[in-house]
Amino acid sequence: MPGDVDVNKIVRGSVKAPIETPYALLDLAVAQRNIERAQAHLQSKGLAVRPHIKTHKLGRLASAQMEAGAVGITCQKIGEVEALLDAGAAVTDVFLSYPAVGPAKLERLRRLARRIRLSTVADDIAVVRGLSSAFAAEPDRLAVLVECDTGACRCGVQSPDSARDLALGIANSPGLSFGGLMTYPAAGQAARATEFLATAKAFIEETGLSVPVVSSGGTPDLWNAASGGTITEYRPGTYVYNDRSLVSRGVATEQDCALRVIATVVSRPTPRRAIIDAGSKVLTSDLLGMDGHGTVVGHPGIKIDQLSEEHGRLVSEGTMSLCIGDEVEIIPNHACVVSNMLDELCVRMPDGAYETWPITARGRVS
Amino acid sequence: MPGDVDVNKIVRGSVKAPIETPYALLDLAVAQRNIERAQAHLQSKGLAVRPHIKTHKLGRLASAQMEAGAVGITCQKIGEVEALLDAGAAVTDVFLSYPAVGPAKLERLRRLARRIRLSTVADDIAVVRGLSSAFAAEPDRLAVLVECDTGACRCGVQSPDSARDLALGIANSPGLSFGGLMTYPAAGQAARATEFLATAKAFIEETGLSVPVVSSGGTPDLWNAASGGTITEYRPGTYVYNDRSLVSRGVATEQDCALRVIATVVSRPTPRRAIIDAGSKVLTSDLLGMDGHGTVVGHPGIKIDQLSEEHGRLVSEGTMSLCIGDEVEIIPNHACVVSNMLDELCVRMPDGAYETWPITARGRVS
Repeated sequence: MPGDVDVNKIVRGSVKAPIETPYALLDLAVAQRNIERAQAHLQSKGLAVRPHIKTHKLGRLASAQMEAGAVGITCQKIGEVEALLDAGAAVTDVFLSYPAVGPAKLERLRRLARRIRLSTVADDIAVVRGLSSAFAAEPDRLAVLVECDTGACRCGVQSPDSARDLALGIANSPGLSFGGLMTYPAAGQAARATEFLATAKAFIEETGLSVPVVSSGGTPDLWNAASGGTITEYRPGTYVYNDRSLVSRGVATEQDCALRVIATVVSRPTPRRAIIDAGSKVLTSDLLGMDGHGTVVGHPGIKIDQLSEEHGRLVSEGTMSLCIGDEVEIIPNHACVVSNMLDELCVRMPDGAYETWPITARGRVS
Repeated sequence: MPGDVDVNKIVRGSVKAPIETPYALLDLAVAQRNIERAQAHLQSKGLAVRPHIKTHKLGRLASAQMEAGAVGITCQKIGEVEALLDAGAAVTDVFLSYPAVGPAKLERLRRLARRIRLSTVADDIAVVRGLSSAFAAEPDRLAVLVECDTGACRCGVQSPDSARDLALGIANSPGLSFGGLMTYPAAGQAARATEFLATAKAFIEETGLSVPVVSSGGTPDLWNAASGGTITEYRPGTYVYNDRSLVSRGVATEQDCALRVIATVVSRPTPRRAIIDAGSKVLTSDLLGMDGHGTVVGHPGIKIDQLSEEHGRLVSEGTMSLCIGDEVEIIPNHACVVSNMLDELCVRMPDGAYETWPITARGRVS
């Protein structure tokens, strides 16, 4: 037997890959290109860019997005903001696009507001009252936008009338300032969202209030994003990595997909079946309306037709060439959720070297 | 404003819950009852018990399963075994029910075999050769069972003939001993699995080899498990917690479900819709063939019809009584995958006190 192997330096082909399979591999040059291209596109449309960090959850990519010209970042959970700041991300302006409810979260929000410029959302006066109770003694630290349900049927006020009423409620609440309007539009319904927001904005301005920000988002409609005289800011998330769902929508190409999952074939039970060591604990069960659990790069005839926790099943019509021990590269259905499954990420740097990065804000669900 | 709140000691009702929502809550008394009941049942059927720790991923519950009479535990990934041992779990005998492929994993397996009694599986002579190369200089440290595909169409040899050939291949490989047969049967196909295994066992015994262990598993068929003169060992996993999928199969009741997800209502956009702060980052997208993403305890008319990463959408036919700030308790579709999403677990101890436990082997995918 050879001496002890340093598993951090296993030589694979001509490169040193620092993580054993299954792992996620980020091509940083591709991510950087994605960041710059979206930034340039949105700026050319007159839109400020506020990337949603849920896709990468990395301090270093949040910093890269800021360096590219973002006005700030978007997080959903307070713990994500805390993790990024604690990791030293170059972030000074955060939009928390999620209602903060309950004394513990309000207290954490209050602490955050002492560290950075902070804004958040509300879609109900009950949420506004909580925010006001936390910030009444520390005014001018929190801007609150009204979340509008423009067709996604998740959170949000249901009508422009309600948006106006809540905007007034915010403006009249001690400690808070009214920050504007936000929506997460249903994919492909950007026009409907803009119409709702334009009406709400007009209603609010009729009261004498100004609407500093009107924020929309979503990578599916990123390349069609337009101000329409209303939208001022865009919050794209998945664009930094892209994934199989965006390729299937025609929004990105495989070459734009910066995040791949690398897995090893561990079983070849039949000529038309192979089992890899990446299951739902890496790829997740997210289908996003698609058939199969990812694209096996370079093997168009192979489908990942089933996942269990640690097994991915590859099937094909004919005999597969894959052997036990072979590595395969997979474009995941949904990149954001893969980032949440793993503690570390293998990063191919632009100079060809490999680094291992902790996934800063993984698992921050509260 | 009140002074700084210690978020570890938020008082909720009459109990102190140590984690903010969304979190997973384990009722330890229920888990202990599940462990003891399954142990007694399987023992009464003449079956040794080797629980699969994937459901809880906790050193302390692995220890509890051993104390209840298990002969050892089952893990799928080497990293799970490493994490449990490093955490001091009272485990001395582990079956790694997953093919170890590649030099890095073989080296880790070799190190593990110096710490505990270890067995693993192979379904191909290529896997056997790798194991033999790693253990040739350290004989009698690794027993290798032949994995049989008895209908689940995942890993495994395809016929009893192939099982015999591979058993001989193992027995003739330096450093390895033939440990027996194993399968993960398709749910409801235990009889078919037993027939395959009985035939394979007879074929192998005809060669003069003995078959020390014949191992089957799966909670869906746990209460129907039988030796049938062939099976010697059972590997149940989900039984320790149970979940909505097992309730839907009639294998467990809601009262047997030891793991719940506690979430807060953060939005009430319409009378028939509520949004909670647990999405796929807690509950996962696993449907296991069911409709909806979990059971909202005490609200039979409410369905969790959609998850995004941080949002769970609750819908009902009529107006819901839930308000912003209310907590709900959810029985997840699939308990095992929830354990993998969270770093910590809130545990209600049998004496009514609450503790926070790290989830020892979470995220160990390799």
